[in-house]
Amino acid sequence: MLSKQIDLNCDMGEAFGVYSYGADEEIITSISSANIACGWHAGDPLVMQARVQLCLRHGVAIGAHPGFPDLLGFGRRNMVCTPAEYKAYTLYQVGALYALARSQGGELSHVKAHGNFYNMAAVDNQLARAIAEAVYEFDPKLVFVGLAGSQLCRAGVEVGLKVASEVFGDRAYRSDGTLLPRSEAGAVYHEVAQVVAQIMQIVETGTITAVDGTVFPVVGDTLCLHGDTPGAALFAREVRSALTSRGVAIRAMAS
Amino acid sequence: MLSKQIDLNCDMGEAFGVYSYGADEEIITSISSANIACGWHAGDPLVMQARVQLCLRHGVAIGAHPGFPDLLGFGRRNMVCTPAEYKAYTLYQVGALYALARSQGGELSHVKAHGNFYNMAAVDNQLARAIAEAVYEFDPKLVFVGLAGSQLCRAGVEVGLKVASEVFGDRAYRSDGTLLPRSEAGAVYHEVAQVVAQIMQIVETGTITAVDGTVFPVVGDTLCLHGDTPGAALFAREVRSALTSRGVAIRAMAS
Amino acid sequence: MLSKQIDLNCDMGEAFGVYSYGADEEIITSISSANIACGWHAGDPLVMQARVQLCLRHGVAIGAHPGFPDLLGFGRRNMVCTPAEYKAYTLYQVGALYALARSQGGELSHVKAHGNFYNMAAVDNQLARAIAEAVYEFDPKLVFVGLAGSQLCRAGVEVGLKVASEVFGDRAYRSDGTLLPRSEAGAVYHEVAQVVAQIMQIVETGTITAVDGTVFPVVGDTLCLHGDTPGAALFAREVRSALTSRGVAIRAMAS
Amino acid sequence: MLSKQIDLNCDMGEAFGVYSYGADEEIITSISSANIACGWHAGDPLVMQARVQLCLRHGVAIGAHPGFPDLLGFGRRNMVCTPAEYKAYTLYQVGALYALARSQGGELSHVKAHGNFYNMAAVDNQLARAIAEAVYEFDPKLVFVGLAGSQLCRAGVEVGLKVASEVFGDRAYRSDGTLLPRSEAGAVYHEVAQVVAQIMQIVETGTITAVDGTVFPVVGDTLCLHGDTPGAALFAREVRSALTSRGVAIRAMAS
Repeated sequence: MLSKQIDLNCDMGEAFGVYSYGADEEIITSISSANIACGWHAGDPLVMQARVQLCLRHGVAIGAHPGFPDLLGFGRRNMVCTPAEYKAYTLYQVGALYALARSQGGELSHVKAHGNFYNMAAVDNQLARAIAEAVYEFDPKLVFVGLAGSQLCRAGVEVGLKVASEVFGDRAYRSDGTLLPRSEAGAVYHEVAQVVAQIMQIVETGTITAVDGTVFPVVGDTLCLHGDTPGAALFAREVRSALTSRGVAIRAMAS
Repeated sequence: MLSKQIDLNCDMGEAFGVYSYGADEEIITSISSANIACGWHAGDPLVMQARVQLCLRHGVAIGAHPGFPDLLGFGRRNMVCTPAEYKAYTLYQVGALYALARSQGGELSHVKAHGNFYNMAAVDNQLARAIAEAVYEFDPKLVFVGLAGSQLCRAGVEVGLKVASEVFGDRAYRSDGTLLPRSEAGAVYHEVAQVVAQIMQIVETGTITAVDGTVFPVVGDTLCLHGDTPGAALFAREVRSALTSRGVAIRAMAS
Repeated sequence: MLSKQIDLNCDMGEAFGVYSYGADEEIITSISSANIACGWHAGDPLVMQARVQLCLRHGVAIGAHPGFPDLLGFGRRNMVCTPAEYKAYTLYQVGALYALARSQGGELSHVKAHGNFYNMAAVDNQLARAIAEAVYEFDPKLVFVGLAGSQLCRAGVEVGLKVASEVFGDRAYRSDGTLLPRSEAGAVYHEVAQVVAQIMQIVETGTITAVDGTVFPVVGDTLCLHGDTPGAALFAREVRSALTSRGVAIRAMAS
Repeated sequence: MLSKQIDLNCDMGEAFGVYSYGADEEIITSISSANIACGWHAGDPLVMQARVQLCLRHGVAIGAHPGFPDLLGFGRRNMVCTPAEYKAYTLYQVGALYALARSQGGELSHVKAHGNFYNMAAVDNQLARAIAEAVYEFDPKLVFVGLAGSQLCRAGVEVGLKVASEVFGDRAYRSDGTLLPRSEAGAVYHEVAQVVAQIMQIVETGTITAVDGTVFPVVGDTLCLHGDTPGAALFAREVRSALTSRGVAIRAMAS
């Protein structure tokens, strides 16, 4: 394939009741795929409905973003659940969003687990398999998003799903392909130029340069943009603009 | 139609986490339709999954049983929600159950609202319409269950759904077709013979005799059996047996 | 008593987990009493702890602000609960805040119910009694806040509590002492001058002029300032400043 | 002290809404201390109120039993929370129960963490300190219950609390003082005689014989009786009877 392309995804619909969160309405114009929270770690039926509408209006692919049953911790704390729980929790949440999409004539394109539901499964094949099986049994045509090189991607392939490997443009990597923890200096890139450089390297050469200088291969199907930091929407616009001006097509992962 | 038939439905899957509730495994052999709680007023993903399996094993029709977001009150307290909330809450819960059914090769046949989500909508056309629209927009082939003669049935028809009118064999009716409140003497029938007599009258003549002696017409497509009272399973067996021995076929409402 | 004085109260601590809400840190300098959410309609233990600290740092009286178990609806929907539930729910929430205050050397000064927990009790003596009894049985020295002239104030007196009658400076009243609904034109005052004029009339003459021109007597011990609208903090500062410059002392209701 | 004595404690109040749990009303006559759930992993305000009444009626010491915010998992799953969260969560729950006790003229005597809130803290001094500090700052006279020899007991002592070391009569121990996991054969004793023998050894000699035959010293201030297994109440009665007939006084830990 000669064309350079990537999907830009962003977590969405993480408001709840009276509480707002993120800048969904602004960032929607910069992305090709939205991961919509399903009411467990965040989100509620009215928010989900509104975000589905937003996606339909902007032609953005709709994905489910299931998480832990921990609204208080926003799904960002480890919870030790069994594979059976992972599977049933995923089905429940994916189905809930599916109904809100279907009622508006929308379709689900992908599933990306949230927060520590994603992180714990990324390093545990059993948990990753549980999520992947849930997705496959619900609809084998859904794209399964996982951290590039992680157990999530492996489990998706094992189960028979089309997998989208997720990469980060604004995070430093270690040579083993894992992210440098946020607690370490230089873990997060704040300059658009630096972010775009990393993405262009991924798109053009299929590699990332780790903090120790090692260059390692990576599959980068979809890039995660953050929507909940100050200036997130502007940042996203600049990244998208830089990529397209360098000849990178922004396309939803299912396409 | 010469054949006498009725559907027997029962609320199911109202356990939660470590908490058990009802006698689902016993009563399943007596019914033709199960209304499975969807995790809001009761139920959780593992319970929903297990009850779907139970229905598939016994050839019982699977229905969604959405309720208020009030686990503490078991969905049995009035909550003033908007039609928009009713609609989105219904979609969310129906979709969640749908996914757990679909992953096991099952299908949803009907939707019956729970507790005061049902009761409030039964007397308010706007709320009833909201639930009916949610069901229709999700899948217009689903059967919509409502209290016989109520706004639920009217809304189902208005929206274009196939409606199943629900009647009670163990409750005394007033001449306007409403139930005598449980707080009044004689409101609940405890004898199988009395219950069967009321059902036979519904099935054979399409009427009920009210407490004041008035005979009024009623459509009775589905009969509600209770699964959460002492002796419920035995009672259900006796009712079913008496009905079949009198030539009444027990058939799921969708058939 | 010759001195003119009033308490200025504001709802606080209505953030939850990652979700922020209101402008607590800004408005704290303008008020004498804070009503801190107790984790049911809003708030969580860390938020409660932080707001207690904020109050202690600024010498603001700490009050409990119990509400319905309805985070999704922010406690602003009617829920039909029994008096026994009202009482136990109040005790639970007041105790939770009490512990977070006591651990930091703070004390509770008052209790003000939230949203529709307050509104439903304001017009139902049984419900109002349930809340008042809970407060009295927990600590008879706590001040009980209720809408001026409502069942809440009556119940507080009946039970033996010191009652603080709450008035609104930014809302139009009807001649029967109830608030003009927000849905009607002119229901909410947006000008500081108009608000201050209404408060000064309350403080100086113990009366309010209703929308129809009727002047009716009112007890105004505490004034509710809103913290969750745009410009709320600035508005509060201006109101406070105008009142003090007119010789009105701002004092916590318990003092 | 020449007299032989021990406290018998049992978890209580783990019902929720319509859901019942355990056999509180039967087991109450066999114990000296009750650990009452506080609405997070289980329990609700009405249940808490009823259990406080039950304790007052039977002269049983009332303790708080705080747990994780995980009703779905009954607080029995690991959740990674910070020490600050542990502390605030403990205060919130202890305060809630305190209010329900105080309103009925009751007092709290002790605090025992629940499930994995207890288990995680038992092996992590920071988490144990967080719970202990919460208890101390709320009321330094409360007795702090922890697994004998664990970080909980150590933290309680460090913080300045009176500590009650908890032992199990029906569980096999390893020579390092930890419990043999339930997954291993012989981990749980089902015979009253065997249970009583282990308790008598603890009471009379301050030792336990591990599964490998090693005899190790143990402090046993309070014995945990289970209330949620079939036959739990009868078992508890028999244990209590056997102990008293052997001259062991059953006394609440605070006394």
